[in-house]
Amino acid sequence: MRMSKLFGRPSKTEGTDYEVDSHRLLVQAGFVRESTAGRYFMLPLGIAVHSKITQVVRRHMNEAEAQEIVTPVLHPLELWEETNRTTTAGFELMKVKDRREASFALGGTAEEMAVDLVRKFNLSYKDLPFHIYQFSMKFRDEIRARGGLLRVREFVMKDGYSFSTEEQFKDIYDGMRDTYSAIFTELGLPTDVVAADNGYIGGEYCHEFVSPSAIGESRYFIDEKSGYAAHEDVAKFKADSPNADEKELPMKTVHAERSKTMKAGVEFHGLEEWRQIKDVLFVDEPTDRYLLVIIRGDLDVNETKLMQVAKAFGLRAATPEEVIHDLGSMPGFISPVGIAKEGKTSGRKLIIVADQSLKNVKNMYGGANKKHEDLLNINYGRDYTPDIEGDVGMAQPGMLSPEGGKLVEKRGIEVGNIFQLGYHYTKLMSGAEYTDAEGKRQPYYMGCYGIGIGRTMAAIVEAHHDDRGIVWPEGVAPYAVEVVRLGAEDDVRAAADALYERLGKAGVEVLYDDRDESAGKKFADADLIGVPVRLTVSKRTLEHKQVEFKRRSEAGIKLVDLAGIEKAL
Amino acid sequence: MRMSKLFGRPSKTEGTDYEVDSHRLLVQAGFVRESTAGRYFMLPLGIAVHSKITQVVRRHMNEAEAQEIVTPVLHPLELWEETNRTTTAGFELMKVKDRREASFALGGTAEEMAVDLVRKFNLSYKDLPFHIYQFSMKFRDEIRARGGLLRVREFVMKDGYSFSTEEQFKDIYDGMRDTYSAIFTELGLPTDVVAADNGYIGGEYCHEFVSPSAIGESRYFIDEKSGYAAHEDVAKFKADSPNADEKELPMKTVHAERSKTMKAGVEFHGLEEWRQIKDVLFVDEPTDRYLLVIIRGDLDVNETKLMQVAKAFGLRAATPEEVIHDLGSMPGFISPVGIAKEGKTSGRKLIIVADQSLKNVKNMYGGANKKHEDLLNINYGRDYTPDIEGDVGMAQPGMLSPEGGKLVEKRGIEVGNIFQLGYHYTKLMSGAEYTDAEGKRQPYYMGCYGIGIGRTMAAIVEAHHDDRGIVWPEGVAPYAVEVVRLGAEDDVRAAADALYERLGKAGVEVLYDDRDESAGKKFADADLIGVPVRLTVSKRTLEHKQVEFKRRSEAGIKLVDLAGIEKAL
Repeated sequence: MRMSKLFGRPSKTEGTDYEVDSHRLLVQAGFVRESTAGRYFMLPLGIAVHSKITQVVRRHMNEAEAQEIVTPVLHPLELWEETNRTTTAGFELMKVKDRREASFALGGTAEEMAVDLVRKFNLSYKDLPFHIYQFSMKFRDEIRARGGLLRVREFVMKDGYSFSTEEQFKDIYDGMRDTYSAIFTELGLPTDVVAADNGYIGGEYCHEFVSPSAIGESRYFIDEKSGYAAHEDVAKFKADSPNADEKELPMKTVHAERSKTMKAGVEFHGLEEWRQIKDVLFVDEPTDRYLLVIIRGDLDVNETKLMQVAKAFGLRAATPEEVIHDLGSMPGFISPVGIAKEGKTSGRKLIIVADQSLKNVKNMYGGANKKHEDLLNINYGRDYTPDIEGDVGMAQPGMLSPEGGKLVEKRGIEVGNIFQLGYHYTKLMSGAEYTDAEGKRQPYYMGCYGIGIGRTMAAIVEAHHDDRGIVWPEGVAPYAVEVVRLGAEDDVRAAADALYERLGKAGVEVLYDDRDESAGKKFADADLIGVPVRLTVSKRTLEHKQVEFKRRSEAGIKLVDLAGIEKAL
Repeated sequence: MRMSKLFGRPSKTEGTDYEVDSHRLLVQAGFVRESTAGRYFMLPLGIAVHSKITQVVRRHMNEAEAQEIVTPVLHPLELWEETNRTTTAGFELMKVKDRREASFALGGTAEEMAVDLVRKFNLSYKDLPFHIYQFSMKFRDEIRARGGLLRVREFVMKDGYSFSTEEQFKDIYDGMRDTYSAIFTELGLPTDVVAADNGYIGGEYCHEFVSPSAIGESRYFIDEKSGYAAHEDVAKFKADSPNADEKELPMKTVHAERSKTMKAGVEFHGLEEWRQIKDVLFVDEPTDRYLLVIIRGDLDVNETKLMQVAKAFGLRAATPEEVIHDLGSMPGFISPVGIAKEGKTSGRKLIIVADQSLKNVKNMYGGANKKHEDLLNINYGRDYTPDIEGDVGMAQPGMLSPEGGKLVEKRGIEVGNIFQLGYHYTKLMSGAEYTDAEGKRQPYYMGCYGIGIGRTMAAIVEAHHDDRGIVWPEGVAPYAVEVVRLGAEDDVRAAADALYERLGKAGVEVLYDDRDESAGKKFADADLIGVPVRLTVSKRTLEHKQVEFKRRSEAGIKLVDLAGIEKAL
């Protein structure tokens, strides 16, 4: 490609409102342009990279025996009604009606479409397992679309869906984890495989592929010794047992003229923070329950874990009104000991959810459900019994992982995710069944596997750039080589033209800066675009029948004989 | 690919409601499945063909120096408002609002998006000409979506837009005509390049690429001697001059107690049909005019030509009310001679549009704007003068083309089209300008170039099938070879497996029917899918270390040595 003819050339002055480097670089180097917020044009350089990423993903998916399909972009809305996802998909669903008043969703994911397709076929256990995937445009009506290709409202996603028995699923899942790791490695984008929350579907099979980056929105913990990695929402940790040997003392009530904070409790009683019981009172509207969550004073409640443990769907903090008038307790003095198990006026049930760490602490202290009254020497099991016990604590840097190593906090960009869908969709959508060996109809067990192509492109730029521009890894670079002609003399022109033609014929993808611009401008543009190898042809290099050879990723420049360039590449 | 694992296998009994063969074959052979009317899933076999077509188109477009981009699927509606196309795009536009109440169009074409992209760049005459194209999903809210992939509501279209000066345009257009012909030739789909109507944009640069087919919706005429080919909407013809030597006789009024038809006129006066003046009275609502169209009695009015000649936008037939009370004439007796040039009560202007053929006929006859009164010996120029004269006649089979050969009627499937956009969009969309050599801002001159990928796929099937199934041309076949194993004996199994592996390693795309089905079922499925070469491995063929070799397009079967298969392919 001749730069003089390229549609979308670099422009270092384009735009100013950039939050992240990949956004600025992809726009200024001429890979993408914004249409409206969160919707991008791909320019020719962008298409080149996007296609290469797509091809790598496709090849690996095919090697893993997944089969490519495409679903329509407009999903019949009744499919989303079958799964109750028209309002609860986790992203705002865009809807459209056609002239016949038929309603459609602009798909943000395609579980329903995949299931609807599969149930059209009368398949048997002999057909299992199988995995279908597609590359298609997905829509997310994000409130906030900033950060270039990292948070968009429209993007190409590779989404795949596996159909199997429950027994077959583990192997498929492990295989896809390997496939994804291989994909990102080949793309030059190292990722951490991070355990994540699977929302209302739950289960242990849910991982994000996260490219470490300070600007990433995923916060996670990693125990580098064991390889344990988990999203902050689900990260587990070992809490210590600070006073395991202490004898349980008799509980007693004391007057406590203190304010509502944890700190006030510590100071008033002169006791350790870990010994204090932290109470958080939620209302789970969808199930109409109070959830009284209790945890060690030095730990925080992780709401995602709480939702899983308590099977809750929509938490809000209880109001002081509710604490005082409905439950007869007092904000800042709530206690699991003796609290009403049902709202006086609301009739709403109250469930006590205790973090697992409480079992390891003796003689705790905290409120007594009355203003300015505290209890000392509260003991789990003796003085109160939780309805649910589980892990609802938030991991912190420096804590020990379940494997024993220290948890280190990391941030990164989620570029892919894999997770079980289980029977969720196939039980909601009638007919999503295969015939088993006994001739009985059984629902499919499903998994889901996604990669955002544009986001991967941006993450590669975040991982591979310097202050002058992008430094594309070879596998995804828009061109393998950029030939730069310096000087407008006929012989230089002829030599550069000839080199461009020659490499093209040899099958090398070449970008050729044939413009009449200054050396400074051409080198700056070359650095901005980030083609891996730059070959400079000038009067000076031609004196010895040579060209300047420079790798974008290295500082050094060497002279290479014109005749030997193919070898040097 | 092992057929036992293929998602979407042939099923001869699937569905019944098929109007065309390509629909039935593509569904039953397992290439596509309907989601809702006019929206299709592509299955793995379909994806294979669709990708091959896409790749052929892409390669030719790139060779023609067009550059690939992608626009967002959701087009900001304000762009369509800039060009007044929200209600007049020629197809029903689907609209959608996001959560911020921003409106978008689901693009049916992308002229506005292409212009909006280009005007973001500050380009000069040195950048011209350039051509950008994309493959993307297009939406058409068709009232009637039947015929499988031939008439859909959602489809992948390659749409390209050239930007140039007006002078440069002709070469670009001719180049694209050649590129398109080369594309369809390589796809195994011969097309006629048919002149077509360019709607309100007009101009001579407008052609459809039509694959001849009896089920096609495009009706066109071709003069096979000269190669002249034109859509029925625009086909030109030479009308004869049946009585050029006749002397002009004095016009006279006669009583004519006849009914309103042309036939009644012929019978009443005992004169030739071609001598009668046929009058058709339209109202063009957008310009608020009566159009009195007059033509030889043996010819019909072509409304598309009429719209172009009279620069009309929305024709309807005038009502008897309007004829009688507003114009003071009489249905069946309307005449250009003495008709009111303005509606009495409406004030609407009346324009007389005469077909060019009228000039060549002397002493015509027809109504006198009064009930049961006719005029004889009406002569063009002497007795009436049209406001507009032009070609508004409908060609008929057997007429002579402008080049002198006989017009033959054909039908076909439009698979591509190319046409000028001229300055239409760039004058409506502010800022769509480049800087010329004098530093002045000039609007771009545009051309538009489209190919429907799915429709091309269906047209290929229409052109290449028999009563047993599809017969794919080699360049677009989903697989190059199908290996069929007959019999379940271990040695047959091993030999067939080995052949499948061996060909795959040699880079041949192989479909392998490894199922335990009958020979009849396997052969029928192979014929239905239509892979170009079938290799059958059985106990019998293996006795002589051979396989059966059969081309899908030929009846003959031969035996080929196992060792020599690569050579035979």
